[in-house]
Amino acid sequence: MMGSDFFYRDKIPVVILGATGTVGQRFIELLAVHPWFQIVAVAASERSVGRRYGEVVNWLMASAIPPEVASLEVLRCEPGIPGSIAFSGLDSSVAGEVETKFAEAGYIVISNSRNHRMDADVPLLIPEVNPEHLELLKVQKFGKGKIVTNPNCSVIGLTIGLKPLFDRFGIELVHAVTLQAISGAGYPGVASMDILDNVVPLIEGEEDKVETEPLKILGTYQQDGEIKPAQIKISAQCNRVPVNDGHMACVSVKLKTKPKPEEMIEAWRSFTSEAQTLGLPLAPKNPIHYFDEKNYPQPKIHRNLDKGMCVSIGRLQDCPILDYKFSLLSHNTIRGAAGGAILCAELMVRKGYIFW
Amino acid sequence: MMGSDFFYRDKIPVVILGATGTVGQRFIELLAVHPWFQIVAVAASERSVGRRYGEVVNWLMASAIPPEVASLEVLRCEPGIPGSIAFSGLDSSVAGEVETKFAEAGYIVISNSRNHRMDADVPLLIPEVNPEHLELLKVQKFGKGKIVTNPNCSVIGLTIGLKPLFDRFGIELVHAVTLQAISGAGYPGVASMDILDNVVPLIEGEEDKVETEPLKILGTYQQDGEIKPAQIKISAQCNRVPVNDGHMACVSVKLKTKPKPEEMIEAWRSFTSEAQTLGLPLAPKNPIHYFDEKNYPQPKIHRNLDKGMCVSIGRLQDCPILDYKFSLLSHNTIRGAAGGAILCAELMVRKGYIFW
Amino acid sequence: MMGSDFFYRDKIPVVILGATGTVGQRFIELLAVHPWFQIVAVAASERSVGRRYGEVVNWLMASAIPPEVASLEVLRCEPGIPGSIAFSGLDSSVAGEVETKFAEAGYIVISNSRNHRMDADVPLLIPEVNPEHLELLKVQKFGKGKIVTNPNCSVIGLTIGLKPLFDRFGIELVHAVTLQAISGAGYPGVASMDILDNVVPLIEGEEDKVETEPLKILGTYQQDGEIKPAQIKISAQCNRVPVNDGHMACVSVKLKTKPKPEEMIEAWRSFTSEAQTLGLPLAPKNPIHYFDEKNYPQPKIHRNLDKGMCVSIGRLQDCPILDYKFSLLSHNTIRGAAGGAILCAELMVRKGYIFW
Amino acid sequence: MMGSDFFYRDKIPVVILGATGTVGQRFIELLAVHPWFQIVAVAASERSVGRRYGEVVNWLMASAIPPEVASLEVLRCEPGIPGSIAFSGLDSSVAGEVETKFAEAGYIVISNSRNHRMDADVPLLIPEVNPEHLELLKVQKFGKGKIVTNPNCSVIGLTIGLKPLFDRFGIELVHAVTLQAISGAGYPGVASMDILDNVVPLIEGEEDKVETEPLKILGTYQQDGEIKPAQIKISAQCNRVPVNDGHMACVSVKLKTKPKPEEMIEAWRSFTSEAQTLGLPLAPKNPIHYFDEKNYPQPKIHRNLDKGMCVSIGRLQDCPILDYKFSLLSHNTIRGAAGGAILCAELMVRKGYIFW
Repeated sequence: MMGSDFFYRDKIPVVILGATGTVGQRFIELLAVHPWFQIVAVAASERSVGRRYGEVVNWLMASAIPPEVASLEVLRCEPGIPGSIAFSGLDSSVAGEVETKFAEAGYIVISNSRNHRMDADVPLLIPEVNPEHLELLKVQKFGKGKIVTNPNCSVIGLTIGLKPLFDRFGIELVHAVTLQAISGAGYPGVASMDILDNVVPLIEGEEDKVETEPLKILGTYQQDGEIKPAQIKISAQCNRVPVNDGHMACVSVKLKTKPKPEEMIEAWRSFTSEAQTLGLPLAPKNPIHYFDEKNYPQPKIHRNLDKGMCVSIGRLQDCPILDYKFSLLSHNTIRGAAGGAILCAELMVRKGYIFW
Repeated sequence: MMGSDFFYRDKIPVVILGATGTVGQRFIELLAVHPWFQIVAVAASERSVGRRYGEVVNWLMASAIPPEVASLEVLRCEPGIPGSIAFSGLDSSVAGEVETKFAEAGYIVISNSRNHRMDADVPLLIPEVNPEHLELLKVQKFGKGKIVTNPNCSVIGLTIGLKPLFDRFGIELVHAVTLQAISGAGYPGVASMDILDNVVPLIEGEEDKVETEPLKILGTYQQDGEIKPAQIKISAQCNRVPVNDGHMACVSVKLKTKPKPEEMIEAWRSFTSEAQTLGLPLAPKNPIHYFDEKNYPQPKIHRNLDKGMCVSIGRLQDCPILDYKFSLLSHNTIRGAAGGAILCAELMVRKGYIFW
Repeated sequence: MMGSDFFYRDKIPVVILGATGTVGQRFIELLAVHPWFQIVAVAASERSVGRRYGEVVNWLMASAIPPEVASLEVLRCEPGIPGSIAFSGLDSSVAGEVETKFAEAGYIVISNSRNHRMDADVPLLIPEVNPEHLELLKVQKFGKGKIVTNPNCSVIGLTIGLKPLFDRFGIELVHAVTLQAISGAGYPGVASMDILDNVVPLIEGEEDKVETEPLKILGTYQQDGEIKPAQIKISAQCNRVPVNDGHMACVSVKLKTKPKPEEMIEAWRSFTSEAQTLGLPLAPKNPIHYFDEKNYPQPKIHRNLDKGMCVSIGRLQDCPILDYKFSLLSHNTIRGAAGGAILCAELMVRKGYIFW
Repeated sequence: MMGSDFFYRDKIPVVILGATGTVGQRFIELLAVHPWFQIVAVAASERSVGRRYGEVVNWLMASAIPPEVASLEVLRCEPGIPGSIAFSGLDSSVAGEVETKFAEAGYIVISNSRNHRMDADVPLLIPEVNPEHLELLKVQKFGKGKIVTNPNCSVIGLTIGLKPLFDRFGIELVHAVTLQAISGAGYPGVASMDILDNVVPLIEGEEDKVETEPLKILGTYQQDGEIKPAQIKISAQCNRVPVNDGHMACVSVKLKTKPKPEEMIEAWRSFTSEAQTLGLPLAPKNPIHYFDEKNYPQPKIHRNLDKGMCVSIGRLQDCPILDYKFSLLSHNTIRGAAGGAILCAELMVRKGYIFW
């Protein structure tokens, strides 16, 4: 369906898979004002099919439902529906198969689900970190279309924070303890009785993702169409805390060459990427914001910094065990999910992987 | 005043210094039903002096103010007031000097404040961990009385959890990220605007305490009256989370001899101490409770386990960087403050440091 | 099954229907230490049947699961299982039919569900308020057994607070705005994304219950076996707030004879009932506690007053529209559910409706 | 200083009194992008005077401090400092006297404090409700300048919601129970220990304001320069709940002529005012938004509707005691404080009370 004869108000037509979920809603909120993309279809599970989106969704965003989306009929998650790009906020229980079908039918699928993330020929993409991994699409075998995946919501922020250190100083070890927001579990997600006045020291499957996904993302694209994983050891402990949005991480790192603290900070502050130079609409001005204030960053204050697309870092200190420790924050449903996925699509447009 | 002619219902008369604060209130709540100790006086800052305790206190405990304490006149924090043991919940801005005066005047001072903790001749005491440090009192130079200190609220739980590992396997490195309750900051303490729907990645001075106090506590008492600190490196990052009571810690450890996981768990579960064998009233049945449930411990569910005096541990896993990682919880104002201090006094009674 | 040959440690054998739910758990917690009743069976929905209770329950109480209950096999909710009294924490979607079957089979059913509450021959019982309504059991037609119902969780506290005013001064109008805890919705109940940093101004069906149930409870038992409802008009608005336990109500009342404020307070403070004089184990010492402190009552501080069985009232003021306004608090899952239901059973034992 | 020779980038120069407080910060956030007003000075209490604003403020807004304000030197709250309009976020302990001095010196003072609200010659202004009360300025006696006051944060939303009912149907009685956000108490304001998992049924002085201020606002301007208060009886009960921003109110009303529900809703939805027709920059498109969804409005979802300047209403139902009951929400620090005050100034500019 890429490069088809489909034209729609001069924008690229996109469909949202899993449109009624929280990630689907965030896609709709962010795309409602997007200069390049136009939502032409919404698809969801069987019980919503055939009804108006505005009637079936339990809308949780702070902004109103875009009226042009509210009036759309919810379609079945099957190829043949309008759209050239399919942004998928599907649950991992169904995402793998559905996304494969859409790719085979010619859609560009940008997925938030874990199913295809570790497939050898699927980019696990953060535009600021590994844009060159899009080369994998040349060898990808899903038929006419393509699948690109967005990493886990905790992984995206963490890996952006690690990238400039990785490039300049080399990274050997990463110890990360996360304090994650409830919105990361979708809706209804975490029961209020489980989290009000409480911390839950388990997020099923999360620690494994934090320990493995960054290795692929920071890995090297080989000429033979493979990614050689980065040689880093990561240890993660993931906690749920009573915060609406914004994942915090307390990170310790051991670097190959230990820099001075001011060099660490300079590496973060000066970090930029193709996403910025290409002027992608959703790209933050600076991917990383380092705070000098010693009680920052904080989820409530900084999660929406630069449209929620910026990673906030602070409290750089010597670590008596590894080299340095610091605190890192990113918005889990914007930068860590829908916003990150849209940025992937923007990068693909600018780099010619989506032609229109 | 030790061993004086003061008799009071056959119990040891105690005075609470800083009685109106949150630690002071917790002392009063716990001592109201204590079999050995009897509150005979409450002392606080100048603005409360001369009035009835029940009228000046902003009582925050869930149980009612004990009527016999409510009717006490608040006294000035100066020696000469009734009581043989002085439990101090004073703020560190005044605690150092006041506690010294009380010790010089002959009181047994049990302090929650940081001021005297690192004094060479002052025990930093956890009854289950280092009861032998009471020997320091033989060389302590505060005149007729004595000062014993309770460690920081995060340190107590952590160090109890480390103790059986230290004894059996040896500890080289400890990495701890804490998620601490708001009650740790006293009252009014943390502003609600700062913590509702938020995490604050800074607790002033806390990381330093977590990195240093356990070394003294786990240190070796030398015949010359000195404590040789344990040779452990600790790295700490401390966060405030919207939880009323109960400090969590995500801990990674490197041990001298790496045991099997079941040996770790067995070490915790079988851990006991003099506090248990002596039958101290506030001693938990088992100092450490290890949970097999992989989403435990949780502050809301487990903070009050065994009168709030037990340390809860769970989620033991291999750590890709150090040897093991786990989650640890303790009640910060009971085990980590007033309850811990009372247990110190109980130990001193049973071991003959307080005779009555 | 009443008066059967079943003997069990000299206590009355009881079964918990809906044992895995939050009300079921609270029943188990409260009955674990009950002097008269002994849990001999637990029953729940199909997916738990045949497994050990301790393995299937997602235990949410602060105390540990009583080991003797944890080891019980979960039974199907069908008559024939052990127990003489059936405490029902069943969901209203199934409670009506199941409870009828148990009553027909001879069990004394004490229900927390709304299904039978307004049946003409079923007592809607608060032991301190309308013990005489048990007379309805004489005309009740469920076969060998009986059904007694516990009112809605908001209604119980409110009606206890109204009872002494009703008796002494007469009540014409009641305006109640509730601020209800999340535990009232059971588990998983309210999604955390819906209530953290939020208020939800709707609790489905709740306002209707608050406006009607008190009329039956405060109604007069007629010789012909009917209840003549009280002639009161009630207006209710019910809100969910981010509080774990404890329903607050802001109440305004118009009385038939307007008393002085001190007479109102005296009526509350002196209020007592058969539940107290009969020495029922779970009866609060005083059903109502009035606070002089003008910022009381508060859920966090007072919900557990007198084992969570007491109603707390404060802030009595003139109401410019009706006569008086005040704030009222009660623990919704103890006084307002399991604890209230157990007290009903205790009353029935002492008054000879359950013989053993 | 009105109409002076002071020119500043073609905008009206304004000074923020009490600039470091939460209302002061909200003024700065909202004025940073204002088309008519330009902050030329910030003034605060003695301990901040002489330092850069960015260094002394504990900034709590979600957006960054405007750099041009951050670099301003904090001035003493005394006339003579730059600015033609003085927006006052001063605490009521000092606001009365300071505001009087500024008015006497020729400033147009727009105050959020309670001190001058009930002065006979001071407008208590809501631009959508009583713009004609600005006529009071003709008789106001503060020297060369003027004082206009913004009502209490709970009163503004409530009175806007009442206004169309008052105009069309007449109002006799209003019963209001509020559930107010913590930001209403300023910073540090409510202690987290007091509100996490809690409700506080007292906000000092608030009920009196809710019962009296609307009578002046809805009062009639008389030719002799007096306001004849509206003849309405209001009963209020005010509670603090754990919500960051957004005051809810459960309101019952008795009207002179009882309309049909659809007439109530139509009155709200069609309500508009001079603020809208004059195109004031901060005026909401519609002052009132009525929701058909029966679980709306909710603070977290709707507080920011229309820049936080709109009042949200929902759940209109028959009231068994008065005529109707409904739920009402408004943003307490935008519509209810800084935003409302700026709208007052905008109205004064357009109506010629501030000429430039």
